Amino acid sequence: MVEEVSNKQIIFKDYINGFPKESDMILKTSTIKLKVPEGCNDAVLVKNLYLSCDPYMRSRMSKLDDNYVPIFTPGSPIMGYGVAKVVDSSSPNFKKGDLIWGMTGWEDYSLIKSTEGLFKIHCTDVPLSYYTGILGMPGMSAYVGFNEISSPKQGETVFISAASGAVGQLVGQFAKLLGCYVVGSAGTQDKVNLLKSKFGFDDAFNYKEEADLNAALKRYFPQGIDIYFENVGGKMLEAVLLNMKLNGRIATCGMISQYNLDEEEGVRNLFVIITKQIRMQGFLVFHHYSLYPKFMDFILPLIKQGKIAYVEDVDEGLESAPAALIGLFSGRNVGKQVVRVAYE
Amino acid sequence: MVEEVSNKQIIFKDYINGFPKESDMILKTSTIKLKVPEGCNDAVLVKNLYLSCDPYMRSRMSKLDDNYVPIFTPGSPIMGYGVAKVVDSSSPNFKKGDLIWGMTGWEDYSLIKSTEGLFKIHCTDVPLSYYTGILGMPGMSAYVGFNEISSPKQGETVFISAASGAVGQLVGQFAKLLGCYVVGSAGTQDKVNLLKSKFGFDDAFNYKEEADLNAALKRYFPQGIDIYFENVGGKMLEAVLLNMKLNGRIATCGMISQYNLDEEEGVRNLFVIITKQIRMQGFLVFHHYSLYPKFMDFILPLIKQGKIAYVEDVDEGLESAPAALIGLFSGRNVGKQVVRVAYE
Repeated sequence: MVEEVSNKQIIFKDYINGFPKESDMILKTSTIKLKVPEGCNDAVLVKNLYLSCDPYMRSRMSKLDDNYVPIFTPGSPIMGYGVAKVVDSSSPNFKKGDLIWGMTGWEDYSLIKSTEGLFKIHCTDVPLSYYTGILGMPGMSAYVGFNEISSPKQGETVFISAASGAVGQLVGQFAKLLGCYVVGSAGTQDKVNLLKSKFGFDDAFNYKEEADLNAALKRYFPQGIDIYFENVGGKMLEAVLLNMKLNGRIATCGMISQYNLDEEEGVRNLFVIITKQIRMQGFLVFHHYSLYPKFMDFILPLIKQGKIAYVEDVDEGLESAPAALIGLFSGRNVGKQVVRVAYE
Repeated sequence: MVEEVSNKQIIFKDYINGFPKESDMILKTSTIKLKVPEGCNDAVLVKNLYLSCDPYMRSRMSKLDDNYVPIFTPGSPIMGYGVAKVVDSSSPNFKKGDLIWGMTGWEDYSLIKSTEGLFKIHCTDVPLSYYTGILGMPGMSAYVGFNEISSPKQGETVFISAASGAVGQLVGQFAKLLGCYVVGSAGTQDKVNLLKSKFGFDDAFNYKEEADLNAALKRYFPQGIDIYFENVGGKMLEAVLLNMKLNGRIATCGMISQYNLDEEEGVRNLFVIITKQIRMQGFLVFHHYSLYPKFMDFILPLIKQGKIAYVEDVDEGLESAPAALIGLFSGRNVGKQVVRVAYE
């Protein structure tokens, strides 16, 4: 007799334009059998512990011509990165009791029909929630974008937008470890303080209080910027371009300022890409997961030696997830936004 | 007794906004002594033979905050690449009778006060005018931008804007030699025909006759573009971004559509740089001249074996130079625009 339990779910209502709202998601309770069904040969049934709120998820809420990530299915749960515990498995690679991180559903229990793309969690002497952030997709984004794509060198100047977020806070610290001069921008004074006190940035500013972003950047980078880690796009990119040094690099990770617009803003000053010999390079972290073991060898010692700080913003309960996701786009979160669904 | 001769000059009048006009340049006749003056220790006095008209010269006509090339001096001759013959020299590297190419003045005779940046012409069994184009700066631009920066591979799809120009026509042929599928855009039907018949492009279109550039590109590249060689910027770049393939590369060589605007147009669709993992890289050819010998080893055999076509648009006489330069921005020239000042 298979146990059937109640399963709370956050259901995606329908495709949207503009800013997402809490009412675009509905809390629903159904039931689920705690066993992988017959015929699923590479599946796991998991109990979700932590869910990750990430800006890229906005893309999955719109039906575009050319989505780069699978879009959500109206009437089905929101999907996202999470940490979960295996309850049942038909995969040779996972067994009951294993902890995993990867793509799961916004619900108490999920049936994950293919284990491709799931990572087994081996190291558990760190908070499990870290696998939604510093030890998961955002950590890999910071590592790939900065250490692999930006070709950083000691002594270079680095600017990071959305710098207190899940990715930005790590990029800044990776850059400091390498001996770079690091400045970040964020949207509140509290976040600016965090960048300087907790994350060790050389300086930081609140972009909302700068009438002239170009002038602000000139203040912090009188000699110009070698590396820009791009998380926001739009007007910030336009201003940064004017402040890049010869042979500068722009690692293009995200453009959160554009995600809720019906049409992207036009960006001027691209001619600088020629006159300063800029290399602007985008990346999708999921094409780089083969580097995950290398990344873990890099990051775990730093965490254990206390050489890296990490701030997360944990909301309690599945019910809090819609507001947590929406909050990313108003800058409500301080640090990595996580939702705790259950204790292990 | 030093010979003093009459010296016709094209004088730059004053800094401009918007489209340059012939009247921004004045023909003047002065005199010049055909000898390097005392105290100039690394100078040559040259007789100019060919002058090159290049789009980047527009940048030298405006006083901007941050010019990447030296701006012209009002009241002095226009400066540009040219081919010339040494009449007198105080440099150990050049002697009377040597042919050179490099930065010279728009006049019959020029005193070049530093020979740094001048190239001695060794191979004279090709037309000397080629050293303003296929064997000079534009040829190097095509080589550096395509062969060095675009990381091209056999079978890839390549799109080139301003494709019949000095640089574009060469990029297309370099790409064909490597086994790429090559399409170019140009601004007249004659140029489109030239691309297909003379330069061996797989296809070409007149961008002025396409109401929807995105749709046009989808027609020629149903599977997308691997490499975009960027010469024009603005709306074309915006449309190309929508048609790039995953891991595509954009070699950013020029943005001629923007040079005469008071303010650059904003470019949308930059989010594609992330979703398609695009590498967009600008370059200034004069930072890459150390590759010139390597380039000559590559290009000279191709010319001598008839494996490369080259079209230039030669105007006669220094007096024709202002109109020739202006014509670049209305697309008057077919192929590389050159002005013949004198026969050797």
